[in-house]
Amino acid sequence: MKFGLFGGARVSDKGPRTDSQGYDTFVDYVLEAESLGFESLFLVEHHFTGIGQVSSSMSLLAYLAAKTSTIRLGTGVVVLPWHNPVLVAEQAATLDLLSNGRLDFGVGRGYRKAEYESFGIPIEEGQERFDEAIEVIRKSWTSKERFSHHGKRWHYENIIVEPPVRQEPHPPMWLGAVSPEGIRRAAREGYNMLLDQVASVAQVGERLRIFREECALVGRSYTPEMVGVTRGLYLAQTPQERAAQMARRAEILGTIGGIRQPDAVACDPELDDAPLFGSPAEIVDRLRALESVGVGYVLASDPSGNLDSLRAFAREVMPAMKRGSAAAQPLEAATA
Amino acid sequence: MKFGLFGGARVSDKGPRTDSQGYDTFVDYVLEAESLGFESLFLVEHHFTGIGQVSSSMSLLAYLAAKTSTIRLGTGVVVLPWHNPVLVAEQAATLDLLSNGRLDFGVGRGYRKAEYESFGIPIEEGQERFDEAIEVIRKSWTSKERFSHHGKRWHYENIIVEPPVRQEPHPPMWLGAVSPEGIRRAAREGYNMLLDQVASVAQVGERLRIFREECALVGRSYTPEMVGVTRGLYLAQTPQERAAQMARRAEILGTIGGIRQPDAVACDPELDDAPLFGSPAEIVDRLRALESVGVGYVLASDPSGNLDSLRAFAREVMPAMKRGSAAAQPLEAATA
Repeated sequence: MKFGLFGGARVSDKGPRTDSQGYDTFVDYVLEAESLGFESLFLVEHHFTGIGQVSSSMSLLAYLAAKTSTIRLGTGVVVLPWHNPVLVAEQAATLDLLSNGRLDFGVGRGYRKAEYESFGIPIEEGQERFDEAIEVIRKSWTSKERFSHHGKRWHYENIIVEPPVRQEPHPPMWLGAVSPEGIRRAAREGYNMLLDQVASVAQVGERLRIFREECALVGRSYTPEMVGVTRGLYLAQTPQERAAQMARRAEILGTIGGIRQPDAVACDPELDDAPLFGSPAEIVDRLRALESVGVGYVLASDPSGNLDSLRAFAREVMPAMKRGSAAAQPLEAATA
Repeated sequence: MKFGLFGGARVSDKGPRTDSQGYDTFVDYVLEAESLGFESLFLVEHHFTGIGQVSSSMSLLAYLAAKTSTIRLGTGVVVLPWHNPVLVAEQAATLDLLSNGRLDFGVGRGYRKAEYESFGIPIEEGQERFDEAIEVIRKSWTSKERFSHHGKRWHYENIIVEPPVRQEPHPPMWLGAVSPEGIRRAAREGYNMLLDQVASVAQVGERLRIFREECALVGRSYTPEMVGVTRGLYLAQTPQERAAQMARRAEILGTIGGIRQPDAVACDPELDDAPLFGSPAEIVDRLRALESVGVGYVLASDPSGNLDSLRAFAREVMPAMKRGSAAAQPLEAATA
């Protein structure tokens, strides 16, 4: 099993303006993750949240490109309907170049109603805007000649988009997908897939099955690394820690409720099998369950941003999973 | 006299796609400039050039923010009519935060006809698009409360733009200005000013005079550091070097011809007093001439990107100018 991070920095606009601690801390977190063997970061992007979520994910990733050397740098995700697709293609190509080919380009059409309203874009137009944008971006990255585009929303005349991307034929594109049709589409159109952190293990398995099936149907070779499954990470040993982590989980579910309305099960991480909750041994069990439905790539999302939890996960959970299913031996050791 | 850099990286799309040398070399150049005492970089941004000019200047600056620690990082310039102003405000704020308050935000309305045509925007709309964009950006950076904007081109509802900028009340804004009205406007509306590299010393003096005059008129205190004057840097000692640098100058004038059509004088840097051309001693003379019309901040733009030229300029020209006019002693020493 392969591991990455999914998440983001947060700068509260409530604090003093001179406080850039949020981003600094996050950068340190990513550097530590790289040295602990995490293979990727998928960085969240949101707008106008009022709680300081990262709005310009590719700017922060460009900064991280200079600070890191091996970790892959992903967007998780750029919501294409907000952006001029050619400007996005330029930013992403620049990032791919600066990171020496480490960009994972995650895209989506967005799910937050408030963001659509704030940008003055009807949410019903999301899909068609996404479709036009991705067409322009693909062409921007692959056309060796100047081209023109006259679509419904965007017009370009005689353009060549620079710089060239570093990865051939272009950075991998990752699509956030939920519905069966969205998943089939991701498979058909050459995307890798990002699955969310609220789906149960059974749902994840079902989605993987649909993706694999559609890949086979269109003759696309499938490997488990093509699907990144985000999982909330809630390491907890003592009863007090367990209670605190449960509260965190409930808060997160409130924020990302657009994906799934929290219900009684979702709010209790002892009943809900989606989060990686509990001791390292319990978490290894939960990862084994994911493995058993075909998951090969987990993106850990720890809302605490705690370095000790990150280290404990890397030292006490990851090695067990790297030994593979055959050698599966849940660990009993407590976190350091 | 204060010194910065004006210029950009270039990645040719003609070469192999794996060649990111252009950006790497440029980053090394900027790092060397920082250590030699240059106080700023203003990074050019252009689109669809076919010769690999930087298209996403703020992405490259975010990367540089991680690699540098003191040099100010400027855009030179972001052409606002191409951009969604709120997304630009977010990118710039992120960069200001990541660089710990080192952003100089240079903006313009663009002068290249081909870029307007490629973006499908009538060049006549440039000014009104610029005006609306800058209004949105200022508000994005200074409003502590959510706001809405319903303009001619852009609509936002109930937004708060994050992250907060690091500099108070916001990063300095620099406006590229040429015409007397443009210059007066820059002074009235609180901009610093960027002057181009083709204007003669007399023209620069006249523009400074207009800017100072308008500052006085609106009660704005003026210092020479508020105006950055770009000058082509063409260090040359031997007759062969002089000939090669003259050819370079002619090529540059062809590219930026939109500002001033090259004429007989402009094409001969021995007659044209705009470029910093010749030996270190000759260049000191030219800087003295600029100083005598009030220039206090020069942005050197060396199309060769040559590190030896940069070092020679820093070691043999800058010290003479830092000693001030009173101690003016043109140097006789040859470049190292």
